[in-house]
Amino acid sequence: MADQKTPHDLPDVSGLTVAVLGGTGDQGRGLARRLAMAGTEVIIGSRSAERAQAAAEGLDTGPAVRGADNAEAARAADVVIVAVPWEGHRELLVSLEDALADKIVVDCVNPLGFDKKGPYALPVEEGSAAQQAEAVLPRSRVTAAFHHVSAVVLLDPEVDEVDLDVLVLGDDREATDIVRALAARISGVRGIYGGRLRNAHQVEAFTANLIAVNRRYKAHAGLRITDV
Amino acid sequence: MADQKTPHDLPDVSGLTVAVLGGTGDQGRGLARRLAMAGTEVIIGSRSAERAQAAAEGLDTGPAVRGADNAEAARAADVVIVAVPWEGHRELLVSLEDALADKIVVDCVNPLGFDKKGPYALPVEEGSAAQQAEAVLPRSRVTAAFHHVSAVVLLDPEVDEVDLDVLVLGDDREATDIVRALAARISGVRGIYGGRLRNAHQVEAFTANLIAVNRRYKAHAGLRITDV
Repeated sequence: MADQKTPHDLPDVSGLTVAVLGGTGDQGRGLARRLAMAGTEVIIGSRSAERAQAAAEGLDTGPAVRGADNAEAARAADVVIVAVPWEGHRELLVSLEDALADKIVVDCVNPLGFDKKGPYALPVEEGSAAQQAEAVLPRSRVTAAFHHVSAVVLLDPEVDEVDLDVLVLGDDREATDIVRALAARISGVRGIYGGRLRNAHQVEAFTANLIAVNRRYKAHAGLRITDV
Repeated sequence: MADQKTPHDLPDVSGLTVAVLGGTGDQGRGLARRLAMAGTEVIIGSRSAERAQAAAEGLDTGPAVRGADNAEAARAADVVIVAVPWEGHRELLVSLEDALADKIVVDCVNPLGFDKKGPYALPVEEGSAAQQAEAVLPRSRVTAAFHHVSAVVLLDPEVDEVDLDVLVLGDDREATDIVRALAARISGVRGIYGGRLRNAHQVEAFTANLIAVNRRYKAHAGLRITDV
């Protein structure tokens, strides 16, 4: 009996349904695409069910993705990825508090500003987008992940392996393990525990640094965690 | 004539002298050790010249490292690494403003707190330790780097290759290129441009996440930047 658990053990998430709110944007469509390619049932959520359905049909993943309005998508899913613009983040989550009750919520929103000097992190009253989600969704299991994945890479049919680790943050061990397992279904990706939710700000803000790297090196930079 | 420059081109830094302030601590000794092993002339700085000299003599790098008080170390160096505890960071730099004039300063300080839930980022009035250095050292060329290197790894004689990228931040291109080149002299390490100094906070704070990773995975985690 080899039931000794290691930090790398992952639960079976093959039967879970994932909703992607804001799934008509590039980041949302990219995540929906990669998760569906991995065999996960995915629902793209949007304010408009029609636009959600159109985005789903526009993906090259066949019938594995469907569209719905945000509330219906949230209710039908086990895990809900929040990939909406920072503007409107709070309002959307407040409006979905009931639909998101008891769900695992995965916030991947990066509150960033841009000026002549490039990208920078916006201050967030709650500390981070993920902590804002936690504050307005007291009945949900809030995690944070998928901050650094390039939408261009996710949507690129020439890219078979996505070369980065997804850092998964949260205070609910079972929830972060499930999100790590979902991330790991994407070819090339590892899902690595990245700390408690109170340490989400710097992971979100670090996206500004990766954008600066991308500009300097003409790259789609990501992170790998060494010695893990 | 192949004088086309790429973002990976690095200047020759073999003739530069590096001081490590706070060089009697583990992080400072580790950086001094690795830079000296790479052939760089290194001066360990401390409040006490005697303790600095003792720390230098305690390294396994031979006569390539010597000790001095912080001001003398700073004056004798081209590049000055600030590896002091966050407590006292501002006061030390204020006291060395003249000695650090015109020098390239490399801040590697991580303002972190610890409680029962583990590590977390401390708020910094100036935004980050690096920006505090910039504010109190108007005549210096302030950069930020070496935040994520494990002192244990740096000091471990069994480790030949340090498996991580050093992110170098700053607004002075020549200065960040020199620091990148110094980092790249350490076996296994790449020096990667990581953005402007205003984006230093999240790099410093991310050390809290790496500590959380280390605890979960029993590792000495570092970062690699992919696609660069």
